[in-house]
Amino acid sequence: MKKMIIASTSTLHGGQYLEYIKDQIASLFEGRKSILFVPFARPGGISWDDYTSRAATFFRTLGIDVRGLHEFEDKVEAISQAEGIFTGGGNTFVLVNELYRHNLMPVLKEAVNSGTPYLGSSAGSNITGLSMQTTNDMPIVQVPDYRTIGAIPFNLNPHYLDPDPEGKHMGETRETRIKEFHIYNSVPVLGLREGSWLNVSGDKITLEGGLEARLFRQGKEATELESGSDLSGLR
Amino acid sequence: MKKMIIASTSTLHGGQYLEYIKDQIASLFEGRKSILFVPFARPGGISWDDYTSRAATFFRTLGIDVRGLHEFEDKVEAISQAEGIFTGGGNTFVLVNELYRHNLMPVLKEAVNSGTPYLGSSAGSNITGLSMQTTNDMPIVQVPDYRTIGAIPFNLNPHYLDPDPEGKHMGETRETRIKEFHIYNSVPVLGLREGSWLNVSGDKITLEGGLEARLFRQGKEATELESGSDLSGLR
Repeated sequence: MKKMIIASTSTLHGGQYLEYIKDQIASLFEGRKSILFVPFARPGGISWDDYTSRAATFFRTLGIDVRGLHEFEDKVEAISQAEGIFTGGGNTFVLVNELYRHNLMPVLKEAVNSGTPYLGSSAGSNITGLSMQTTNDMPIVQVPDYRTIGAIPFNLNPHYLDPDPEGKHMGETRETRIKEFHIYNSVPVLGLREGSWLNVSGDKITLEGGLEARLFRQGKEATELESGSDLSGLR
Repeated sequence: MKKMIIASTSTLHGGQYLEYIKDQIASLFEGRKSILFVPFARPGGISWDDYTSRAATFFRTLGIDVRGLHEFEDKVEAISQAEGIFTGGGNTFVLVNELYRHNLMPVLKEAVNSGTPYLGSSAGSNITGLSMQTTNDMPIVQVPDYRTIGAIPFNLNPHYLDPDPEGKHMGETRETRIKEFHIYNSVPVLGLREGSWLNVSGDKITLEGGLEARLFRQGKEATELESGSDLSGLR
């Protein structure tokens, strides 16, 4: 039975790393002594070791050990044997490229679908959807494929940002960019604002965190979904 | 001799399409009766025809006819025979994909390098750099290659946006994203704020428009360049 927390962001403004969602993470990984951290997205170019240390510092407060996926010679086995998995944010292209390079996309999908508890934030959330095509990140490396693990039957836009009504910037809004995606793709896209997350339990997908999320579907007006909404039927 | 205007944006807040740069465009295309418009980037998913009409409406005020590249059966010949070329903004992935699909990247490069006057805005500016890897756009289609025409020996980030000191958003800033690019790539990146453009005349590249631009180089602190700066030596 799938068990996932898929968060828009790791950190809220003024808060500490993963602090706002600590109770949910404790519950997700309850009974786990050790989890596997996927550091590949490297936010700001941080090293795999340093990024893993950052995650480990947080998980120490829950009494859970963290090991970085990069430390394992046999990465396929590391994923399939993991008690729990956390994929951190950063650059989605870099993350996806590294997963394909080591042929890890299928085993990650299998682990999550078979019930290994999974936490994702930002880029680590992006890869739980059908494709990474609604990422906000720059294409700083080439990826062989945009398809991701599809543990949820739609796409995400993490760090979703509303247009600033006072703004004078003329670059495309996030909403315009997602509408452009829907010229070429029919997959629904959920804009997850910072402070929102999806709780996945088996086939049930619930919007949590007290904020509304913005749902974009091909050929339809965008709509707002209340916190607590059941997204299980969205596809 | 190269003659180009490479603009951050087509439109300033509160202004009309290309209005703020009309004098420079008139000078760039002086003596031209007709120019070729590349509508492939399709901002907001607008059709090629509608996008070409929008460009034609502006150029009519300069007494210049506009034809869309999509109207030509032989697109290679259309580019090589053009009196002038304007590539509009939109989604850079869609634009680059379409250029590769029709095998137009080499002929566009050749036309620009041999002196066909070229105007680019936003995505149409992105492709004048060495690669499209510092675009702000979502990867809504897969591209075969990130490399672009390289008429200037560095990369651009159009619609460059400064971090909001009051902002509470935790998604990566533009500066962070460009720094992540420099983990993997050594090409300099110029953040062009809306209202800035590059004027290219032969090998001379000048920053114009009265605003500073922000220059990012691998392994160095970002710096501000004054309007009027000579960028000819940047590589």
